[in-house]
Amino acid sequence: MSERYFQHTYANGLTLLVEKMPGVQSGAMTFLLDAGGSTDPVGASGTATVLSDLVLRGAGSRGSKELTDHLDAMGLQRSSSVGIYHTRFGSAALAARVLEALPTYADIVMRPHLPADGFEAARDLALQSLEGIEDEPRQKLFVRLREWFFPSPLGRNTMGDPAELEALTVEAAKADWARRFRARGAIVALAGNVEFERAKDAVGAALGEWQAGEPIAVEQTPPPGNFKFEVAQSEQTHIGLAYPSVPETDEDYYTLRLAIEVLSGGMSGRLFTEVREKRGLVYNVSAGYSSLKGMGAILGYAGTSNERAQATLDCVVAELFRLTEGVTEAELQRAKTGLKASTIMQGESTSARAGAIAHDFFMRGRIRTLDEIKAAIDGVTLERVNAFLKRTPPGPFTVVIVGPKELTVPAEAR
Amino acid sequence: MSERYFQHTYANGLTLLVEKMPGVQSGAMTFLLDAGGSTDPVGASGTATVLSDLVLRGAGSRGSKELTDHLDAMGLQRSSSVGIYHTRFGSAALAARVLEALPTYADIVMRPHLPADGFEAARDLALQSLEGIEDEPRQKLFVRLREWFFPSPLGRNTMGDPAELEALTVEAAKADWARRFRARGAIVALAGNVEFERAKDAVGAALGEWQAGEPIAVEQTPPPGNFKFEVAQSEQTHIGLAYPSVPETDEDYYTLRLAIEVLSGGMSGRLFTEVREKRGLVYNVSAGYSSLKGMGAILGYAGTSNERAQATLDCVVAELFRLTEGVTEAELQRAKTGLKASTIMQGESTSARAGAIAHDFFMRGRIRTLDEIKAAIDGVTLERVNAFLKRTPPGPFTVVIVGPKELTVPAEAR
Repeated sequence: MSERYFQHTYANGLTLLVEKMPGVQSGAMTFLLDAGGSTDPVGASGTATVLSDLVLRGAGSRGSKELTDHLDAMGLQRSSSVGIYHTRFGSAALAARVLEALPTYADIVMRPHLPADGFEAARDLALQSLEGIEDEPRQKLFVRLREWFFPSPLGRNTMGDPAELEALTVEAAKADWARRFRARGAIVALAGNVEFERAKDAVGAALGEWQAGEPIAVEQTPPPGNFKFEVAQSEQTHIGLAYPSVPETDEDYYTLRLAIEVLSGGMSGRLFTEVREKRGLVYNVSAGYSSLKGMGAILGYAGTSNERAQATLDCVVAELFRLTEGVTEAELQRAKTGLKASTIMQGESTSARAGAIAHDFFMRGRIRTLDEIKAAIDGVTLERVNAFLKRTPPGPFTVVIVGPKELTVPAEAR
Repeated sequence: MSERYFQHTYANGLTLLVEKMPGVQSGAMTFLLDAGGSTDPVGASGTATVLSDLVLRGAGSRGSKELTDHLDAMGLQRSSSVGIYHTRFGSAALAARVLEALPTYADIVMRPHLPADGFEAARDLALQSLEGIEDEPRQKLFVRLREWFFPSPLGRNTMGDPAELEALTVEAAKADWARRFRARGAIVALAGNVEFERAKDAVGAALGEWQAGEPIAVEQTPPPGNFKFEVAQSEQTHIGLAYPSVPETDEDYYTLRLAIEVLSGGMSGRLFTEVREKRGLVYNVSAGYSSLKGMGAILGYAGTSNERAQATLDCVVAELFRLTEGVTEAELQRAKTGLKASTIMQGESTSARAGAIAHDFFMRGRIRTLDEIKAAIDGVTLERVNAFLKRTPPGPFTVVIVGPKELTVPAEAR
């Protein structure tokens, strides 16, 4: 490995990743725990979301307020979230502060107090947050699209299920914490002004004694169907489309990514120019790649006025199928330039890099260098893209509509 | 000026600002034109928003599609927006590409085609975007809060007014373009791997011949009132509060900013801990400083379930008044650390710095260095903060509620 990238796996299964970035003062940490929406206990969807809040309500020698004050006193810009696979804690600050905070993060994951009153408050907030989706039809669309496209529990709403959250107890949450907050599969990724040896010692001292824990098996079941219409008294109709594609580890991953960039990258992307600019059908339209372990997917979205919704759906589907006819050399070049430019920009952000190396390690078991990514993009030829697009027409589709009126899915997408 | 910051004003009134940042490859541009929502013609609110789209639909020797393809072929990550004072075009890429794109941006602002069919499409999209707000009660709340708090036209919705957009003609848009797209008051701010002398020549060659144009006078009228309840059949109640404060150029600006940081900075902020963590009343709660020329304001927001809305409003108002009793030394230290840390993080992003130096120049007529900002934060004493808070109790308030049920504004905030 070069002088920029480092990795180490401790005896308990925790992995440390470091990217030493030149010319920055800051450091960023992405801490991934193997506790995502997909491993929430059956019948207790949303437990990881409640835990991600609850573990911050007192840990180690510090009570709830003390803990928060202590972390803020280091100037950490903090975040936390729950995804399909992981609970994620992020922090960014002057690099020295990020290392200094490691023992406190060890308290949070290994020695949280999990108080009963804090549990009630955290669960209430999770329920409120779920209720809030009802006021955000676009967010609701994406929740439903994932539920109807991905196999369960991968398509689960990571925010949880209202009835299951209501039934959750502090005892069940504690038991789940003991099961899932553990070193096996956990990743601490640091990027910025960080020395590997120092980081290795600091992470080892803080988290080396963390219990390894047991692997978690998840059984997958197919989604409920491939078309869902949800009535909403909304001013706009929200349309979601999804179809399977190659996983991130496939040799055609960048072939696909560049094709999707032609479809939806920048303002010269086909969806933007055809659906929005030329036909003025829609305010928001996009398609993107979604990465799961061992599977990839294309998720498309359009939000439009109720009268234009059918024309928009037809037009987006037509553009997806038009891809099979191939892209032009000029389109491919623009796609390459755009994708490389965003890679370079991302390379200057410590938070983006910490997130990227953690994602790489989870998906591929190793860090890719920025040069490797750029070379992979450059290596894709027009022939390769067009042969790929010809042999992989879009589909089978899942279509979700949130709006006042049902739409007709075009025959080719049924 | 140091070796990091440079500025130059051309004969036509255009100002170039450059921040040369060490250790980055990228460059970012913020291009501000003196064409914001507040200078939209009377009766034609939304014209700047339509123009910001329309000028990209063909300019100089390039038609609409050619222009978009040309900019995307340089790998520019582009954005555009309309604020109270300005139309803003942003781009970021490898630094050399950002300079290379300058002649094209000159085409866009000086030689746009403004085609009639493009006008219809741009206006339709603006109308669709306005309709979309009806599905986003939180965004709607902020639109209404600005309308009811700031004097008109500063409080205008920069997205426009539906009836006025319907009545807008391409001829009127063209006349307005000629009036407002001009060098006077325009700012090109570049940050990143950029040499000042090269940038000065490139900007001069591209935009030096741009017409200066005439100053635009705007007459202010008071807002319609200080309480607005808008019925919405929403699952949550959205609460907005606003009251005036010192302008950004005031010597107590950082005194105020640090006090607001105690109130709402990080997770240890009082609103977060008191309203959310302790009482579990609300999922989203925050307060922030909003800067206008010659005036400042505090805008507060809470989104909560309908049953908890009254308790939330009461609790937020109580926290605002509790500030007059002062903050503690520990709170102030955390606020200083937090504000400095975010300044340092921002100092590593070319896009953030391009935006920050443009804002500084518009508000203060000069660029502030990062060291100057850090020194200003460090210079604020506890005595100063507490004396300031004592003599400037919050108010007079403007309160806006979007939700199914009206609330009672606490007596002290009426």
